[in-house]
Amino acid sequence: MSHQETMTRYLLQFIQGLLASHVTSAVISPGSRSTPLALLLHREPAITTYIAVDERSAGFFALGLSKAQQKPVVLLCTSGTAAANYYPAICEAQESQLPLIVLTTDRPHELRQVGAPQAMDQLNLFQGHVKLFVEMALPEASPTMLNYAYWQGLRTVQRAAQVPAGPVHLNFPLREPLLPDLTLGATPIAKQIFQGEQRLSRSELTSLADAWSNKRGVLIVGGSQTTHEALNFIQLAETLGWPILSDPLANILTCGSQSSTIIASGDLLIQELPTDMQPEIILQFGLLPLSKNLMLWLSQLEPSQTERYFIDESGQWQDQLKQAQTIIQGSQQALIADLVSKTNIMPTDPAWLASWKVYEKLVQDILATDWQKGRLTEAQASLLVHQKMAPNGQLFVANSMPIRYLDRYMTPRHTPYQLYGNRGINGIDGVVSTALGMTAANPNCQNVLLVGDLTLYHDMNGLLQGKKYQLPLTIVLLNNNGGGIFSFLSQNQLEKQDFEPLFGTPLDLDFALVAQLYEGNHHLVKSLPQLSELLESPTEGLRILEVQTQRQDNVQELQALSRKIRRQFEAQDEA
Amino acid sequence: MSHQETMTRYLLQFIQGLLASHVTSAVISPGSRSTPLALLLHREPAITTYIAVDERSAGFFALGLSKAQQKPVVLLCTSGTAAANYYPAICEAQESQLPLIVLTTDRPHELRQVGAPQAMDQLNLFQGHVKLFVEMALPEASPTMLNYAYWQGLRTVQRAAQVPAGPVHLNFPLREPLLPDLTLGATPIAKQIFQGEQRLSRSELTSLADAWSNKRGVLIVGGSQTTHEALNFIQLAETLGWPILSDPLANILTCGSQSSTIIASGDLLIQELPTDMQPEIILQFGLLPLSKNLMLWLSQLEPSQTERYFIDESGQWQDQLKQAQTIIQGSQQALIADLVSKTNIMPTDPAWLASWKVYEKLVQDILATDWQKGRLTEAQASLLVHQKMAPNGQLFVANSMPIRYLDRYMTPRHTPYQLYGNRGINGIDGVVSTALGMTAANPNCQNVLLVGDLTLYHDMNGLLQGKKYQLPLTIVLLNNNGGGIFSFLSQNQLEKQDFEPLFGTPLDLDFALVAQLYEGNHHLVKSLPQLSELLESPTEGLRILEVQTQRQDNVQELQALSRKIRRQFEAQDEA
Repeated sequence: MSHQETMTRYLLQFIQGLLASHVTSAVISPGSRSTPLALLLHREPAITTYIAVDERSAGFFALGLSKAQQKPVVLLCTSGTAAANYYPAICEAQESQLPLIVLTTDRPHELRQVGAPQAMDQLNLFQGHVKLFVEMALPEASPTMLNYAYWQGLRTVQRAAQVPAGPVHLNFPLREPLLPDLTLGATPIAKQIFQGEQRLSRSELTSLADAWSNKRGVLIVGGSQTTHEALNFIQLAETLGWPILSDPLANILTCGSQSSTIIASGDLLIQELPTDMQPEIILQFGLLPLSKNLMLWLSQLEPSQTERYFIDESGQWQDQLKQAQTIIQGSQQALIADLVSKTNIMPTDPAWLASWKVYEKLVQDILATDWQKGRLTEAQASLLVHQKMAPNGQLFVANSMPIRYLDRYMTPRHTPYQLYGNRGINGIDGVVSTALGMTAANPNCQNVLLVGDLTLYHDMNGLLQGKKYQLPLTIVLLNNNGGGIFSFLSQNQLEKQDFEPLFGTPLDLDFALVAQLYEGNHHLVKSLPQLSELLESPTEGLRILEVQTQRQDNVQELQALSRKIRRQFEAQDEA
Repeated sequence: MSHQETMTRYLLQFIQGLLASHVTSAVISPGSRSTPLALLLHREPAITTYIAVDERSAGFFALGLSKAQQKPVVLLCTSGTAAANYYPAICEAQESQLPLIVLTTDRPHELRQVGAPQAMDQLNLFQGHVKLFVEMALPEASPTMLNYAYWQGLRTVQRAAQVPAGPVHLNFPLREPLLPDLTLGATPIAKQIFQGEQRLSRSELTSLADAWSNKRGVLIVGGSQTTHEALNFIQLAETLGWPILSDPLANILTCGSQSSTIIASGDLLIQELPTDMQPEIILQFGLLPLSKNLMLWLSQLEPSQTERYFIDESGQWQDQLKQAQTIIQGSQQALIADLVSKTNIMPTDPAWLASWKVYEKLVQDILATDWQKGRLTEAQASLLVHQKMAPNGQLFVANSMPIRYLDRYMTPRHTPYQLYGNRGINGIDGVVSTALGMTAANPNCQNVLLVGDLTLYHDMNGLLQGKKYQLPLTIVLLNNNGGGIFSFLSQNQLEKQDFEPLFGTPLDLDFALVAQLYEGNHHLVKSLPQLSELLESPTEGLRILEVQTQRQDNVQELQALSRKIRRQFEAQDEA
């Protein structure tokens, strides 16, 4: 058998394994060594391929596809630094538990460590940041090795998707010539996989139901959840009569429920609560929500008065405060379903939730007065995006300030949309590409990205995919010309000659030109009604709605708001 | 002692260590965890700091500084994916043997592996791609630990600079609050370092001189060399009467020498040489030059007729063809100096070099006819850049096609300039930033980047540094709208529907807008005289001189040229 036929049959069998594991998307960066895999993936009708020149953006684009499709996505690149550019997306995929199948191609063994061009050590390239690394064998076409190639395709995707999901890396040594035989086809192999779920026993469930019934508890929901999952958390909160405090990405506020259990203003009210509001139970699902105020409140609760339960679905012990007395390892959704259907769990006195709602209303009334002024602030623009999202749309929210605005100001809506973000490591990198990957996964709904200027700049290259694939994404840009978050932190105390170059970092970029470069539209938004109108109008491709603000204004607004809330709470407690 | 004072004294002492190792530049990316190190580096008058928002570009900017300053350069970023963005530059630094001091800041131990925000495992983050990884101790201010901090600063820079030079990584766990005490100063500590050099003994030198004297040899020079080093290689070639074939980055053709030993057209003539031109000795310094024709010629030489010597300065056995019979481990420059000054090395018959010059002239005459047509091709634009470089200027040449044009068409000049490239792994990433780092190191000479459109796009973010620091860089852009190199490779046989999306990858970007975005000038060059004039005119900041070409034209030109050369050589051999 010729070199070309051997190589082609081996790689086709590997791709059959990917298909058997339901891979449907691949993001390919051009290169020479990767030629046979690129061509065979591109020619496979069951796989949609996207081509991306910048591998860093390609990695995050795949991450966005994986997020919105809830499926493993393949990445492919050539040898050398190309692969190193995937590293940020791989780290984020690991921490946010998303399955990426990273395929790198490499020189064969005889051309390694000899200074051959475009070659470097690719073994274990991503260190502990992938779940699994496989150095593939050189192509062979014996029945054993064709079955091996198929088995690696099948099982590595399955391994990537297992809880906790994450990236896997396969390195393919390939010899020249690299052109495959495009007339050949693969041999089908049949395998079935049954996958169990981690559930508690009936007696464990009953003991938890007994411990939680008739107690004043608080439900904390962190991590990324779908709107469907969010509804189940709300059902549990309603069953228990408990308030629910959550991370924005838990989608509690965007799942279309207006349940009275939802506390929208947790970040603003939690530190002002009187001490008699200390709960008897804290039931935390997943990571801590992003609110620092909530984290501080939780860390200061008197341990003798509050029992803490931590649902550790991933089994990774990510109990940041390390104060949980009971750790429950198992599926979050299965636990909720089992508690509601298999136990006699009972709600607490409705007065408990009612008192939370009193404080919630105080904050909401203050905010309503602020919003009436109708000023185009970062906070109000962010809130408007939330309010204007079309039903079943997708909003990607950037890190740093945008997600904090949503956390602070969102209130429940009566129609759902899905909120996404990169909260594995909360980087400002790759956000544009992740949002475009999300858009590519579901191009027929409304797709919006809420983002600051530094974050947009960091992944500006990602916009090329928007142009190339005509992806309908509306970017709401909060442009405060620099790193807005540092004005909220202690760095703000520094003198201007230290603060501005190191933390303010103004870019002075004209984003109208950025839109033009990538063939998008640009609107400089001057008022809230204008923003509202633009958000309601349809878009066929890329669109940047730019809101220009001053960094220091945002800080002053929050300080004024916090003072007002404190005064109101003090007045309430005295009354 | 307060937390703030302890942290500040510890970090100041570390920075003292860097200073003692002659660090003078640091490239800092903004972030919170890195605040104390960023402020203390920024405040240190002996260190020039550059601030770069995109860590990937920052990494390559530091690489460019290190290349042109021939000094270790510090990189600093915050925790999380920020550090992962350095990976491509770190891999390139390792393979091109440049000293980078990578400082990452991290959560303290109690906030690791608990799902804390912006945290991931940073230990051994860059795996085998750094020479050394150090997890620093938490700040302490005992005399022992202040000496430890100083010692780590001093020795890690020294380790990075030792042959083979390369990147080192230090990870600093830091607790909040993060603001340092800017009123404190460091305590000086005195240490001296004597560093030896790897040299051969007198008897070893004599045996080599005896083996090489009066033999028909060829000197092969690969790797990156300074123009000063290049002159020494030429001196050796003249001493032996041998032709010298080299990589463009060896700077043999740009060092200002017009020695008759220099063979400029090696790539074009080597495969056409008659068999009686087989040398008795091949003496190879460093990596193989980039010419594939030269590599094939070397690999096909009859072993019984040619003795091969490989000077392995880095000790890494990077003898790609694995055919060297003698491996010499030691300093290249010391070996040359010792051979010339301490031995009685003798030249071969001048007829040997004269016959090489006959073939060289044949090629040069054909090229002269081609150049007379005065067409604005990629080849001729590249040659013009070489010819027009101001004395003692700096030219950075991108990978893929630009460096191949220089390799094929450059001829010796009578004034020197320094040529740089990223030939560790030959990536298309980070090239703009490396060229800007080179410019920042020596802003007062002429600085030029010769680059294709994909490579410019891949690191477009890097242009921000050009705008921010008003770096005077002229970018000569060979825009063939896609991946030009693939038209020269076997992929060119593919049908258009496979070739264009996977290999052609047109960007369809308007580079006039790119220039405008980064406040540079843009000129669409229409003729060689116009390009010549623009290259001669001074620039104060960023400038893009765009040459638009067709990918297929380049291939046809090279094919036509190769046919002409073959015919001429055949006629010569018959004559």
